[in-house]
Parts: sequence; structure tokens; C-alpha cells
Amino acid sequence: MATIKDIAGKLGISVSAVSKSLNGASDISEELRQLVLDTAVEMGYSTKRSRKETHRRLALFIENMDYASENDFGYDIILGFKQNAFKNNWDVDVIPVTPTFQLQEKYDTYLLKNGYSGAFIVGFALNDEWMKQFNFTTMPTVLFDNFIRNNPNTCYVGTDNYEGIDSAIEHLYELGHEKIAFLNGSLHSMVSEQRQDAFIQGMSRHGLKVNEKLLVYGYYVADSARYHVPTFLENGATAIMCGNDLIASGVIEECKIRGLRIPDDISVVGFDDIPLARALTPKLTTVNQNRIELGKGSYTTLASLISGIAISKTLMRPKLMIRDSTGRHT
Amino acid sequence: MATIKDIAGKLGISVSAVSKSLNGASDISEELRQLVLDTAVEMGYSTKRSRKETHRRLALFIENMDYASENDFGYDIILGFKQNAFKNNWDVDVIPVTPTFQLQEKYDTYLLKNGYSGAFIVGFALNDEWMKQFNFTTMPTVLFDNFIRNNPNTCYVGTDNYEGIDSAIEHLYELGHEKIAFLNGSLHSMVSEQRQDAFIQGMSRHGLKVNEKLLVYGYYVADSARYHVPTFLENGATAIMCGNDLIASGVIEECKIRGLRIPDDISVVGFDDIPLARALTPKLTTVNQNRIELGKGSYTTLASLISGIAISKTLMRPKLMIRDSTGRHT
Repeated sequence: MATIKDIAGKLGISVSAVSKSLNGASDISEELRQLVLDTAVEMGYSTKRSRKETHRRLALFIENMDYASENDFGYDIILGFKQNAFKNNWDVDVIPVTPTFQLQEKYDTYLLKNGYSGAFIVGFALNDEWMKQFNFTTMPTVLFDNFIRNNPNTCYVGTDNYEGIDSAIEHLYELGHEKIAFLNGSLHSMVSEQRQDAFIQGMSRHGLKVNEKLLVYGYYVADSARYHVPTFLENGATAIMCGNDLIASGVIEECKIRGLRIPDDISVVGFDDIPLARALTPKLTTVNQNRIELGKGSYTTLASLISGIAISKTLMRPKLMIRDSTGRHT
Repeated sequence: MATIKDIAGKLGISVSAVSKSLNGASDISEELRQLVLDTAVEMGYSTKRSRKETHRRLALFIENMDYASENDFGYDIILGFKQNAFKNNWDVDVIPVTPTFQLQEKYDTYLLKNGYSGAFIVGFALNDEWMKQFNFTTMPTVLFDNFIRNNPNTCYVGTDNYEGIDSAIEHLYELGHEKIAFLNGSLHSMVSEQRQDAFIQGMSRHGLKVNEKLLVYGYYVADSARYHVPTFLENGATAIMCGNDLIASGVIEECKIRGLRIPDDISVVGFDDIPLARALTPKLTTVNQNRIELGKGSYTTLASLISGIAISKTLMRPKLMIRDSTGRHT
């Protein structure tokens, strides 16, 4: 673990200049400060500093996810995280980020210069710049719905997609459905891949055949339905599972346009249980992700990482909410 | 959620008799007490009571695992659990159990009558009586290396076997090994099944073929080696991965008897990193399970369950310890 003296030695400057740079003294130029911070991160100084918990500040970086209103998926995740963090005397800054921001700022350096002891990462895409940096970060980092291999400073938190998808298949199976379609969300998302895999496993566990024409990736938007529902119907689907509730709302709309009654003619299941699910007609049967618990569990996990316990995955229980969009296949 | 009044109503006895039974008053017969407790558990009273955290007592049930000495696998798991629990003002009772004990005592009733708010379950086998009861328990229950489907009062804690096995394959692959054998532990264990599956996935991820003659279940004892090492050698294995360190110690012994040098002629990898691993000649390359962290993380997870956060899985990072039993394949 590097000390201030090591950093000074490497850069050929005085110990006090390094110390001033790290502490943001005003008589140090911004260029020198950046150089000292980058070097400190390179030499592993950040971890040592963060583990001291002197600042009691956590960062929550969020991208690609709405969180401003109670109806947004991210709202309760942030709320739960903050609730648990505040109870344990941590301040939390919510920082929206963009791909450009990630190119401009190095992740570890950003945390170090702003005095954060760790971070919670929400909504990042697999091809984000910081996703590469997470492979080598020395800062305690919890990722919502993303997994980093082999770096004990990082942990993945999410809902158990395997159990969630399986409970939906079980419900449809018990209602007599066999030709079950799955309109998944976007490709290049770890969560979509897990749900795809979970669907194949779950169908097999119930002795049901997967028809390749009934299993497709779309996007996490309602519009996805328009392109795929016709094919599902042509191939005899009696139930359609969806990658999230938005997709399900599109599927319901598309089925209605075609004069199909839900659930009498076809059953529809969502994923997430955002407030929209209860507002649809009929009310949507869906797999609930408890977002308050996800937020709270993410804080607990981050606290464990900060205290040196290398948790790699924390999965939360999904809960199937049976409402009015699923019925017996006759 | 049932109240004392509900229990009294169901049994046709007075509220005060129920209350006395639940609190272990001396003027209540043991038979009546047992009946009240069983009824309370049946009606879901236990959960309500446990969530109050009035007793601040946790139970740690252990079976099929040594834990008396520092060299035993269970020692640090219990130590880590206790350390974290005590820090948070919980008392912990370590209770060794047998299959007979599980037939005599109902799990929920046992916790309720002894005033436990939750339990940590270590070393249980899939066919144990209580494993069935865990499907329906209303008590916060964390299981080491066992998973219960669909019951949000339970959580599985363990090391990420997939990452552990994969890191061992990666290490051997980088050393030039392609014919890698896996002598797994016992059948009918969730952990063995995961490691088997992880081995097949990991080989495929590295573009290596799995030879069925090089992949077998044994038992978690050194003696397993005697029966399987000859077949591995006949089929050209240049490296042998093992279900745990004990098996690896047997494999090393068996190879030595046959005049093979380790790692020059054959590489051997263990799993667990118990103290024995460093005492072997040559020192064993193995996948470390950090048992103190497993214990600590299990406490944190149990505390989350007690506070109503339904975590279903907490996985810890494995760490490959590269020592002297693995070498380049020439």
C-alpha cells in the first residue's frame, strides 16, 4: 500500500506538496493536483484512504434510468439506499453520469478527489467506459445489475432473475399454458441475458418445450410489442412473458388492437412491478422487484465491502404478483 | 399475523394460558406448552415475535462439520459469525444437531420456545428433516451452502463456486494444461453440483473439452483419490482439480506412490484452503474460501432478514492461492 512519501518519491516533489494536493489546498495548481491524484490511485493509495471512513461520504452514480418521480424504477432504489446509509451516518451524493463524463473523469480519481469512501453504480451499460475501470478499481463499489469478475472490491446486487422467471413459468404452467412466449428486453445487458437463460431453464424444469420463434430479444420499451406479438400469435402462443412491465403494456395494447381478450384469449406477465402494472387494464400479473429492499441491501453490501468483507453477489427475492392479466388456458 | 388471542381462540383456552405457555411459566404443563407453541408456529405467530428482537439471541445449528480446532473448516465460520453478532449485541448459541434431533424437534417451535430471533444453519445435508421444514419456516434463517426456493425468510450464503472453479481452470490453462481432470466431492450436495456445473462451464469458456472419464464424483475424503487417480492417469490427465483440500492431499499421495513428481509430471489443485493446504509437500495451490468473511457475511445477511430485507443469496469472493503443486505443462 503506497504512502504519501511513496507518491512524493515517485513524482520527485515534496511530501507536503503531495499532502496539500490530496487535501485540496488552494495554493496547489489544478494540474499538479490531478497528477498527484492519478498517481495516488495508480499506486493504490485510494483504498487505504477510503478504508479510514474519515469522510463518511458515499457516491451514487446513475445512468440510463429515471428516478425523479415515484413512478420511476430508480426512485425507490435510491430512497432505500439513502435511508439505510443515513441511519448509519453516511452522506450520499446522487450523481447522474453520461458516457462523455466517464471519458473525462477517471473513476477512482473522481472518488478520491471528492472524498468518497465508496460508490453505488446504477443503470450502467456493458460498454460504458467505467465498466472497464471497475475491473481494476481499488474503491469499494457496488453495482446494481452488473457483475465484475475477480475484483474483490466490487459486488453485484440485483433481484434473483432465475427465481423470478421460474415463478412466472410455474404460475402459467399451473394455469395449463404450454406454448409460452418470452419477449425479452435489450441485448447486451447482463440482466436480459440472465432472464433469457432463466426462461430456457425454467421451461425445461417444467417439462415444456422452448419454441425458438417464441423467444426473442426486443428493447425495454412498449413499442417492442408491435414487431413481435404477431409472430407469437401465428405460432400459437397462449401466454406472453415480458422482459419488463413497459414491454407488457405494449403487448396488452397490441393484443387488444387485434381483438384478443386478456386473460380469456391470452395471458400476459410483466417483470419489475412498477406502479404502471397496477394501472393497466387488466391489472398486470408481474414479477415484483422490491426496489426499497434492493437499495437497502445495496447499502449493507457496500458497508461490508468498506469493512473488508469481499461479498461478490447479493441477490434479493423476487415475488410474483398475481393480478388479472393471467388466466386458465382452456 | 396471528395474535395471542387468535391462538387462544383456536385452542379454546384462555389468553393468559397462551401467554404463560409462550413465556415458559412454571404452572403450565409441558404438554400444553408444546401444543401452544406448535399452534403459534402454525399460525405464523413466531415471525411477529422474532421481528421484535426482544431476546437478542441467535441460534447456530451445525452438523456434519468439524469446528472444534483452528484447523477445522467450521472453526472460522463460527468465529466470524460470533464476532459480528457480538459487535451488534446479539448472543449466539452454537447447537450441534443430529438427524434424530431433527426428527424429535420441530425447527420453528424449537426456536420459538428457546427465544431465538433467527438462526444460522451450517453443514446440513439435502435429505435432512429440517431441510424440508425450511421451505415453510417463518423464522429468519441463513443457510451456509444450501438454498431454499421461494421462501423469503431464508437465505443462502456461500463462496461463489463458479468464480472459484473458473479461476483454477484459468490458472491451469495459462500453464498450458488441456487435459484437466476434476475429482469432485460427494453427490447429493448442492455445493458439489455447483462445482461440477462450474467445471463444465469453465472448461467450455476456455475452449477446452471435457472428457467424461476425467470428471467424477467421489467423497469429501482423501481416500477418494485411490479409486480415481489411476483412471485419470490412464486417460492422459496432466492436471487434477479436487472438490476440496482433503481430496487433493489424497491425490498428491497417490501420485507420489506411483512415482510421479508434482508439479513436474502432474499438477494438483484443491478447494477451501484449510491450514492443511500449506502443510502439504508440495504446498497446495487451492481456491481459498475466506471462512471468517463467510461467518461475518452470514451474520450481516441474517440481520437483514430479521429487519425484513429478503436477501436470497449472498456469495463471497473465492481467491486462488497459487503455491507449489501447479506447474507448466511441457
